Amino acid sequence: MLEELKEKVLKANLQLVSYGLVVLTWGNVSAVDREKKLFVIKPSGVPYDTMKASDMVVMDFDGNKVEGDLNPSSDTPTHLELYRNFDNIGGIVHTHSSWACSWAQAGCDIPAFGTTHADFANCAIPCARGLTEDEVNGEYELNTGKVIIEEFAKRGLKPEECPAVLIHRHGPFTWGKDPFKAVENALILEEVAKMASRTLRISCFDKNSDIGIEQYLLDKHYNRKHGNNAYYGQNN
Amino acid sequence: MLEELKEKVLKANLQLVSYGLVVLTWGNVSAVDREKKLFVIKPSGVPYDTMKASDMVVMDFDGNKVEGDLNPSSDTPTHLELYRNFDNIGGIVHTHSSWACSWAQAGCDIPAFGTTHADFANCAIPCARGLTEDEVNGEYELNTGKVIIEEFAKRGLKPEECPAVLIHRHGPFTWGKDPFKAVENALILEEVAKMASRTLRISCFDKNSDIGIEQYLLDKHYNRKHGNNAYYGQNN
Amino acid sequence: MLEELKEKVLKANLQLVSYGLVVLTWGNVSAVDREKKLFVIKPSGVPYDTMKASDMVVMDFDGNKVEGDLNPSSDTPTHLELYRNFDNIGGIVHTHSSWACSWAQAGCDIPAFGTTHADFANCAIPCARGLTEDEVNGEYELNTGKVIIEEFAKRGLKPEECPAVLIHRHGPFTWGKDPFKAVENALILEEVAKMASRTLRISCFDKNSDIGIEQYLLDKHYNRKHGNNAYYGQNN
Amino acid sequence: MLEELKEKVLKANLQLVSYGLVVLTWGNVSAVDREKKLFVIKPSGVPYDTMKASDMVVMDFDGNKVEGDLNPSSDTPTHLELYRNFDNIGGIVHTHSSWACSWAQAGCDIPAFGTTHADFANCAIPCARGLTEDEVNGEYELNTGKVIIEEFAKRGLKPEECPAVLIHRHGPFTWGKDPFKAVENALILEEVAKMASRTLRISCFDKNSDIGIEQYLLDKHYNRKHGNNAYYGQNN
Repeated sequence: MLEELKEKVLKANLQLVSYGLVVLTWGNVSAVDREKKLFVIKPSGVPYDTMKASDMVVMDFDGNKVEGDLNPSSDTPTHLELYRNFDNIGGIVHTHSSWACSWAQAGCDIPAFGTTHADFANCAIPCARGLTEDEVNGEYELNTGKVIIEEFAKRGLKPEECPAVLIHRHGPFTWGKDPFKAVENALILEEVAKMASRTLRISCFDKNSDIGIEQYLLDKHYNRKHGNNAYYGQNN
Repeated sequence: MLEELKEKVLKANLQLVSYGLVVLTWGNVSAVDREKKLFVIKPSGVPYDTMKASDMVVMDFDGNKVEGDLNPSSDTPTHLELYRNFDNIGGIVHTHSSWACSWAQAGCDIPAFGTTHADFANCAIPCARGLTEDEVNGEYELNTGKVIIEEFAKRGLKPEECPAVLIHRHGPFTWGKDPFKAVENALILEEVAKMASRTLRISCFDKNSDIGIEQYLLDKHYNRKHGNNAYYGQNN
Repeated sequence: MLEELKEKVLKANLQLVSYGLVVLTWGNVSAVDREKKLFVIKPSGVPYDTMKASDMVVMDFDGNKVEGDLNPSSDTPTHLELYRNFDNIGGIVHTHSSWACSWAQAGCDIPAFGTTHADFANCAIPCARGLTEDEVNGEYELNTGKVIIEEFAKRGLKPEECPAVLIHRHGPFTWGKDPFKAVENALILEEVAKMASRTLRISCFDKNSDIGIEQYLLDKHYNRKHGNNAYYGQNN
Repeated sequence: MLEELKEKVLKANLQLVSYGLVVLTWGNVSAVDREKKLFVIKPSGVPYDTMKASDMVVMDFDGNKVEGDLNPSSDTPTHLELYRNFDNIGGIVHTHSSWACSWAQAGCDIPAFGTTHADFANCAIPCARGLTEDEVNGEYELNTGKVIIEEFAKRGLKPEECPAVLIHRHGPFTWGKDPFKAVENALILEEVAKMASRTLRISCFDKNSDIGIEQYLLDKHYNRKHGNNAYYGQNN
């Protein structure tokens, strides 16, 4: 069942390792088949170096395991909630990458400080509120997904234009049209988070600094790559 | 004698190198055989790349060398004191990994800032007091172990729930049910120490920050992985 | 056409990867043939690991594509403007390397703090002003080049003596007598940017610090390597 | 002439690369033959990956080239002055490693914050004064050596107990009984410099911090490894 998608999800999970985004088993990638209303996700706590495509777990949109010998990632209900609400995404990534987690632990949005960020998202990367005690003690991972959806609704953000979110005191989720694009976005998020932290540091130590991107430059770079008249790359 | 355990201790020592936790000879791993009341430890100051299983040194619980041509690690009495007092640990690691040592040199506990930390320990990572002049000039390495035991007793910490400690102006010790888990904990400690430092920096530069984990989220993540009803991974 | 130059440009682009100066497709190298008034540049958004010399794009000095199946880098008009105005440069590099971009995002010149910097440039690395809304919404990439030229004119800088510039909120451009020297300068810039940031940090935390190079030491090191009586290296 | 020493000097220079202490050609190692009053040093500005033992340059104690087709390192007179004044050293290293240079650029001694430092040197790593305009415009590299000697004399430091120095606005020199020990000390200096910077940062952000090593702990660790009754390692 979904053998091709399992191979892709395996490969995307291994990319997390080669990009240096995970240590030990701290990350997971999933991908969805919208027609069959099924998604494939990494098993929980399994080392990357022995993982096989056949270890991937198939889940339905009600949160039931449809195929697989292993337990799915403990974060599966978060992925599920995102697939149910963000109609156009095809893959999701969760990591504990160091710079993105540091912003999440600080509880701060990652500000748009330059064009590296603007090439990625047309807004600050939102840090969603932490979960309440009831939310944590209830269906914790599902509620994590609900808080993300709530945050995007509250801020009027579209998941196509902002491919990443931080959860306060936890870490990042990213997504994309397929699992490889979701991994690429996890990598970019980490770079942007690192650069923003270094920018902030220099700006605090140097009196001549001037930080914060203008809306017109943010729009220009975002649209140059992602807009209707995009002219970056070869597909235009 | 204890050939299998020597192989494990060698392998665990080499993992310190591949995880980037040591430079030169700055680290050591040991493992205990509780039934025989013996433990195996790395020899002192021997380069990792030429070390063999037969170079490992066997010690008894009175601190006597039972087998081995080489001097045991100079930190051997610290390992001994921990094995004598922490009944459930099977392996111990000492490194001078950069981020953990930086917290130790600053003399600060590593605060629990998020779920990466909560997946590891259910408390701040304690920085034990430095040793007095008498303690340093006496049985220094043994006294280092005694100070760790004292710190855990004073704070009411259990070694099973807090697998790491810092010694002020020195560095970290970690432990686990076996030497590989102890190495894994040394790796996690370094990641957590790095992330905590970066979190602190962002929080000092960004006025919107809000740091410090809630007890209910700390408990949730710790228990999701280590509690009686743990549901992370495959062994539940 | 220009087959040898295409091979060089390909090779120089791949050096960006091996030096760790780019992630994904975030960088480009070009090289010029002054006699033919043509330059060769990397195609836009093509992965480095599958790129071939025949994918390189040949452009003329009016900005027309002369040869190549692919779209040239979106930054091509910036390269063009630099070749038209800086007569003695043979190759140009643009990256989003993390430390250089962090200074660019902070909007600060990189100060000359020591001899590593002085071996590279005889002045602070200038951060050029950001573009106005009209400049961004007009011929953005061409205007980026014009702003660089303007900044060098305003400050009286010579491109031979200052092989790098930052664009506010964007990132660095570097150049050299050929594409390999331009890549080398991109690498040095990143090292200098990193070292300057760390120097600034230490100087803010340590009351005994004293930063800022003397003109005579800046001159000495710059001229030891690049002056008429240079005695560094083998070509003197 | 001195073929064996040339091989050692080549090998030690290549260790700088594998330890990540140099980029491009930014570093050099030399070693001395005390009986013959000759020393062997890396040629100036030659890439590490094509360098051969026969490229090494032999110098006498008057600063004359005795053998070699290439120009010696431009820093040769500094090495010479150190060999002439520090009788017990057998090898010298100069690098522009990032953390050590950042302390040098800040003009600060690297304080002894913990046992990693104490295992290396029994004092703060001194940052020698910058050179005057006359000293820079005169025999610059020779004067660099003289300033190091002056600094050690003024502070009453012994080169055997403090194997490293920083030059203000420039960078580090390290030494040892042979070129490999000098390289090892360059590596340790970089680790110590990194850790000290991170310690300082945490201590400034965390109100509970307490930094600065006690003399008795500094002595204990230094002597445990280097004293008359050293018990670290296998040679005691």
